[in-house]
Amino acid sequence: MAAADAVKEKEEQEQVVSPWEVSAGKGGIDYDKLVDQFGCQRLDAAIVDRVARLTGRPPHVFLRRGLFFAHRDFNEILELYEKREKFYLYTGRGPSSEALHLGHLIPFMFTKYLQEAFKVPLVIQLTDDEKFYWKNLTVEESKRLARENAKDIIACGFDVDRTFIFTDFGYVGGAFYENMAKVARCVTYNKAVGIFGFSPEDHIGKCSFPPVQAVPSFPSSFPHLFAGKDQLRCLIPCAIDQDPYFRMTRDVAPRIGYQKPSLIESRFFPALQGENTKMSASDANSAIYVTDSVKEIKTKVNKYAFSGGQDSIELHRKLGANLDVDVPIKYLNFFLEDDDELEHIKKEYKEGRMLTGEVKQRLIAVLSELVARHQRARAQVTDEMVDAFMAVRPLPKMFG
Amino acid sequence: MAAADAVKEKEEQEQVVSPWEVSAGKGGIDYDKLVDQFGCQRLDAAIVDRVARLTGRPPHVFLRRGLFFAHRDFNEILELYEKREKFYLYTGRGPSSEALHLGHLIPFMFTKYLQEAFKVPLVIQLTDDEKFYWKNLTVEESKRLARENAKDIIACGFDVDRTFIFTDFGYVGGAFYENMAKVARCVTYNKAVGIFGFSPEDHIGKCSFPPVQAVPSFPSSFPHLFAGKDQLRCLIPCAIDQDPYFRMTRDVAPRIGYQKPSLIESRFFPALQGENTKMSASDANSAIYVTDSVKEIKTKVNKYAFSGGQDSIELHRKLGANLDVDVPIKYLNFFLEDDDELEHIKKEYKEGRMLTGEVKQRLIAVLSELVARHQRARAQVTDEMVDAFMAVRPLPKMFG
Repeated sequence: MAAADAVKEKEEQEQVVSPWEVSAGKGGIDYDKLVDQFGCQRLDAAIVDRVARLTGRPPHVFLRRGLFFAHRDFNEILELYEKREKFYLYTGRGPSSEALHLGHLIPFMFTKYLQEAFKVPLVIQLTDDEKFYWKNLTVEESKRLARENAKDIIACGFDVDRTFIFTDFGYVGGAFYENMAKVARCVTYNKAVGIFGFSPEDHIGKCSFPPVQAVPSFPSSFPHLFAGKDQLRCLIPCAIDQDPYFRMTRDVAPRIGYQKPSLIESRFFPALQGENTKMSASDANSAIYVTDSVKEIKTKVNKYAFSGGQDSIELHRKLGANLDVDVPIKYLNFFLEDDDELEHIKKEYKEGRMLTGEVKQRLIAVLSELVARHQRARAQVTDEMVDAFMAVRPLPKMFG
Repeated sequence: MAAADAVKEKEEQEQVVSPWEVSAGKGGIDYDKLVDQFGCQRLDAAIVDRVARLTGRPPHVFLRRGLFFAHRDFNEILELYEKREKFYLYTGRGPSSEALHLGHLIPFMFTKYLQEAFKVPLVIQLTDDEKFYWKNLTVEESKRLARENAKDIIACGFDVDRTFIFTDFGYVGGAFYENMAKVARCVTYNKAVGIFGFSPEDHIGKCSFPPVQAVPSFPSSFPHLFAGKDQLRCLIPCAIDQDPYFRMTRDVAPRIGYQKPSLIESRFFPALQGENTKMSASDANSAIYVTDSVKEIKTKVNKYAFSGGQDSIELHRKLGANLDVDVPIKYLNFFLEDDDELEHIKKEYKEGRMLTGEVKQRLIAVLSELVARHQRARAQVTDEMVDAFMAVRPLPKMFG
């Protein structure tokens, strides 16, 4: 195939976003298109302001910079919070790798903020069964990864008095399994194919799984936490690729007498090579891991972080950087907390007064600090702490 | 459609046997064809003799009269029993009705005999989830029926020191759920459609279910019973319509490092109206229920049991009865223990010396006694006894 054809094909390529595949079309992910396609709502400045007013604290960086950019009925959650009614948070992770990268931390950092700001209980699902179904892992390896990942999650600073962490292989059963059956009976195979794109040659574990990720949305799946509170509302912070699960869940909920969960959904954290590429577990240079040393961070950022700067200093001084494709700026957008400094860097860089190397230096400092802080916290997490978070128990501080 | 056409269509009708549908072609179920189609083995006189020799007791009526007529690797179970090795029994029931009919008792009566004869542990699965998926029942109703059915099963006389009864909604989870995932990953949707005939408009609960019925075949699904005995062999007494589940299970077993379960499979217990009709929960007159009174049994047998006798006494004396279609004879074949008396009745009836009314009288006596005995035993079964059978516990008398 001639190079021109290949480029043309790339340009024509449709973006694909599913829980198991994210591939951008030309020019990166089109989030606007995604919102329309998925049928969720845009998270606008009015909602962000309302969060700030209700919680009495500045909105999280991820909120005020539009990194969490879409939602489903998040306004209803704010409505009832305003009326001093309760809700709970649900998030999770598929434990497919030993060490988390920075993208994996996003939903947990944000959920920790929500937990603190709203003072609500949180359930965290580790889908070891999902990874067993989709990756070529043994049950034992999936369970081991789930436990290791739990340590990284705990290191994000969750409150054990308000947080229940569970693995599917450990917790599925009883009321949880009953809800799985209720959901499964409402979803035809055709419907599941439409939502998730299964093929007839896929194993039946795949179409058995969506109810497992659906039912933490329903308080009755956790009788030790929410007995007698079957109508308690649930808010799910997640990346937008998880939307199909909860579209399905919201469709089913009223048919089985439950409330629809609300969602607050984030953009993807880009790979070092840029938004059109994928952070890949098999390519250590595509992402910054929470286990990376300062030296590794330095090398990765300097060598692999895609730059929107010009090819020569002369050209850069004259034309400035293209911030839309610049990965260091995207990363600072997530992790540099100081809004004024970020604006300053963006302006200077865009107008050619700051060079890529200088921006990268600042990013290396920010990431090194973040990763070092995580590593210190992770080192403090004992097996006893994991057991404490995972114990099936009432939470001593549920609300307030 | 003209009557002749209807008859022709009936004649051409293929027999269909699946876990959810049994419909005979012309002339009743063709069991020979079924054995070939399913690929199981015929249970011959040599095996029955061997059972008698090994257990030191006469073979059960159901064995010596060919009512359990097919098997898969039952000879291997006998082989290892002869070498003083161990195995366990697994049977079960989908709790779709309040009261059992006589057909429901067959596998339990036979399993009780096997448990006593071989002195082995037994697990009994009550698939309340299956009935939730296939019937329009609530979870609560499915669970209630499972518990009521457990009382009827316990009334068959199982030894609580060797028997674990569980419901899926109560027991799925942990090691059992891990095995479900292992099985699910080995079965494609296409394969499940081939075995069970699902349609794309069926809900996903249906293709999620087969692993649930598969995994009691593996001892590791019961860590409280068989810890460290992962290769213990399993024997499953069941009706032939359950064969598809275990064909699938046997196909998967070696791929996940487990032993294939062995099976011993029975014919169907016919409806009162004959083998071409179905015992139906919605037609109380199609079956004898364990809750029926002597009066009801009398009425049902006299009024509905299909007779192979002739239309007039004169003709009957001359031509005799057609035993192949006669329901009272089929029922006596299951439940009249005395072989000599049965042979005598068959001979007299076939040669016209005995009338249908007389055979029915004998059957009413046999069934009334059986049902009365069951009702007495059922009345003794307390909720505490159900809890004792269902407790997740080691069995005090596992073997010997």
